[in-house]
Amino acid sequence: MSIISNKMVAALAGASLVRRMFEEGLRLKASFGAENVFDFSLGNPDLPPPAVFKETLARLAREDGIHGYMPNAGWPKVRERVAEYLNVEQGAGLARPFTADQVVMTVGAAGGLNVVFKALLDPGDEVVTPRPYFMEYNFYADNHGARLVPAEPGPGFSLDISAIAAKLTPATRAVLLNSPQNPTGVIYPAERLADLGRLLAEAGARWGRPIFLVADEPYRKLAYDGRRPPSVFPAHPYSIVVHSHSKDMSIPGERIGYAAVNPDLPEGGPELAGALTLANRVLGFVNAPSLMQLTLAELQGAAVDVSRYQRRRDLFVQGLKAIGYRLDVPAGAFYLFPESPLADDEAFAALLKEEKILAVPGRGFAGPGYFRLCFCTPEEVIERALPGFARALEKAKAGASAR
Amino acid sequence: MSIISNKMVAALAGASLVRRMFEEGLRLKASFGAENVFDFSLGNPDLPPPAVFKETLARLAREDGIHGYMPNAGWPKVRERVAEYLNVEQGAGLARPFTADQVVMTVGAAGGLNVVFKALLDPGDEVVTPRPYFMEYNFYADNHGARLVPAEPGPGFSLDISAIAAKLTPATRAVLLNSPQNPTGVIYPAERLADLGRLLAEAGARWGRPIFLVADEPYRKLAYDGRRPPSVFPAHPYSIVVHSHSKDMSIPGERIGYAAVNPDLPEGGPELAGALTLANRVLGFVNAPSLMQLTLAELQGAAVDVSRYQRRRDLFVQGLKAIGYRLDVPAGAFYLFPESPLADDEAFAALLKEEKILAVPGRGFAGPGYFRLCFCTPEEVIERALPGFARALEKAKAGASAR
Repeated sequence: MSIISNKMVAALAGASLVRRMFEEGLRLKASFGAENVFDFSLGNPDLPPPAVFKETLARLAREDGIHGYMPNAGWPKVRERVAEYLNVEQGAGLARPFTADQVVMTVGAAGGLNVVFKALLDPGDEVVTPRPYFMEYNFYADNHGARLVPAEPGPGFSLDISAIAAKLTPATRAVLLNSPQNPTGVIYPAERLADLGRLLAEAGARWGRPIFLVADEPYRKLAYDGRRPPSVFPAHPYSIVVHSHSKDMSIPGERIGYAAVNPDLPEGGPELAGALTLANRVLGFVNAPSLMQLTLAELQGAAVDVSRYQRRRDLFVQGLKAIGYRLDVPAGAFYLFPESPLADDEAFAALLKEEKILAVPGRGFAGPGYFRLCFCTPEEVIERALPGFARALEKAKAGASAR
Repeated sequence: MSIISNKMVAALAGASLVRRMFEEGLRLKASFGAENVFDFSLGNPDLPPPAVFKETLARLAREDGIHGYMPNAGWPKVRERVAEYLNVEQGAGLARPFTADQVVMTVGAAGGLNVVFKALLDPGDEVVTPRPYFMEYNFYADNHGARLVPAEPGPGFSLDISAIAAKLTPATRAVLLNSPQNPTGVIYPAERLADLGRLLAEAGARWGRPIFLVADEPYRKLAYDGRRPPSVFPAHPYSIVVHSHSKDMSIPGERIGYAAVNPDLPEGGPELAGALTLANRVLGFVNAPSLMQLTLAELQGAAVDVSRYQRRRDLFVQGLKAIGYRLDVPAGAFYLFPESPLADDEAFAALLKEEKILAVPGRGFAGPGYFRLCFCTPEEVIERALPGFARALEKAKAGASAR
């Protein structure tokens, strides 16, 4: 008999694939030296935060009276600054402007999603999300007694409205989108979001309660070739965006982000804001870290040098295509999601590991038949890894033909 | 029909007493000026953080490479420093020393308690805690489908072992203690903790699974008259201490603390550490804020000037006793918990409000018949408030005799 909860015994078993992979990576690095292992497995931003981040942080660190409690939703002036920026970034097409009332500062996007789910979900409720997806979403729904329901994607991992429609039930309380998407890098176009909004409005009306569109957007500022990811807000009035500064500022260890409610919400705005704020408190976050709130308030709109990620993406995509891999060019985020040359993506990840290349099998994102590569690595590492990718592909072809 | 979850509708209704009080306080301050309202309601530490905190923070804020992801349990070197300090502070009487393996850095004590509960509790489980208690504990248990079971206190809010024994069932997975206690300031003596440990060992053996002793210790360093709060670790091998630096460093907005597992845990240590770490991740905390981890690692053992709280305590206790209030002298924390002169403590809090004094009725801590006063206020505020306390007491006596 275990001394921990039964739920956690099961969760630990389920989490063991990633942990085993992580531990094998550590062993490889210990054996061959970290510089000889090509680690594309973890989405850990390696670009430095913008210089203005350090300057602002160092200045605020010398101030007094900034480390105490504030309202659970965050410092009012911080929420005002975020609202001002949201009006610039995502205010087009909305009838009403964002104010501090629509913004709750959160412990990153992971904290923000849990706060949103706590506010919306009762035990037995369902959240629909298109495959492939960040597997932690399963935990986030389960934390509140709800259930994540995956929907099939369209061609090229596009947003398939009919596939989502097929998963809606009277228990559906939210559809969760992630655009730019981890692991595919897909950005959903405004027209598809509008289609989804119409679907959710119809279904919500039919069942007599709104279905929320929840957008997990930590990669919003990591979009390439001049793209600007369309906002979910004009697509559906019952929508909430969860943002994190982990990726756009390269500060994932600091846990700072926010949840923003659509200002055009037709009803219940104060109640929802109150629920998000109370959820922040009772889940044990209490509030987003104070110094980081104040720092990021001054840096709304700032971001790391995205052109550097774009150069890596281009180098990596061209290199893999030249070798013979099949993959789409990601529009955003910092991942490639190539087809696995073997039907068994875990077996192919093992072949890559023989070349000291660490990748995550697609099944780690409910996307079997693919594998994920993170390009949070210098270009030089990508270049040096390409011969290993070529050898692994040859082995896969040889093994497949030998069967 | 509400747009939020049914659970949250109920939670918002339950949280309305405190919110209403907070809002009335704001109204009073707006009407009469903040300096003319005596706010003893919120436990918001007003002493500045120790000078070394700002120095350390300002120095670290200029460093590079400190804002990225680290293991979900926290930076290994931070966990080592905490373990070293725990060996000094609470290592006496233990067979094995603390190491980094027993420490998980958390988003404050609220985050830490949720991480511990997630690791230990399945739906339907029970957590026993003595009255009065911090009401958020109800949410923390409910977040994981479990239930908080209050036990009666002994005389002077002492730890009544037989009252706890009466509440133990096969569903009991933990007993939660808070010493120094909010709201009473009581510190449990080592002998009572040892008695509790024996009780839990017997009950755990009888039902074939351990019952954990979980200690919520944000006030450990706020102990007066030279007291050192006894540790739960020597009392029961299945024990976990949750600490926060919110109160001892006056930085509650920064959300930094840790959970520490007893190094003498007889079984399952790595599994429990793994469960705490995974819980930190899947609940959405991911990790404790990085910069604050690194800052506090250098400041283990530091604290605000506790003698200033002690002087306020003495002034406040003497002042209230001279007027005719009945109360015990708190041994720790920064609260007084006097008897309410009216049986209805909410009615008496209303009388205090007529004197522009804000206090929390004891029922806000499952302690009806008392009221809580926080002395996170300058001595001058306490002195100026005493005449109002005297008038409220007179009104209460007059009203009581008139009935």
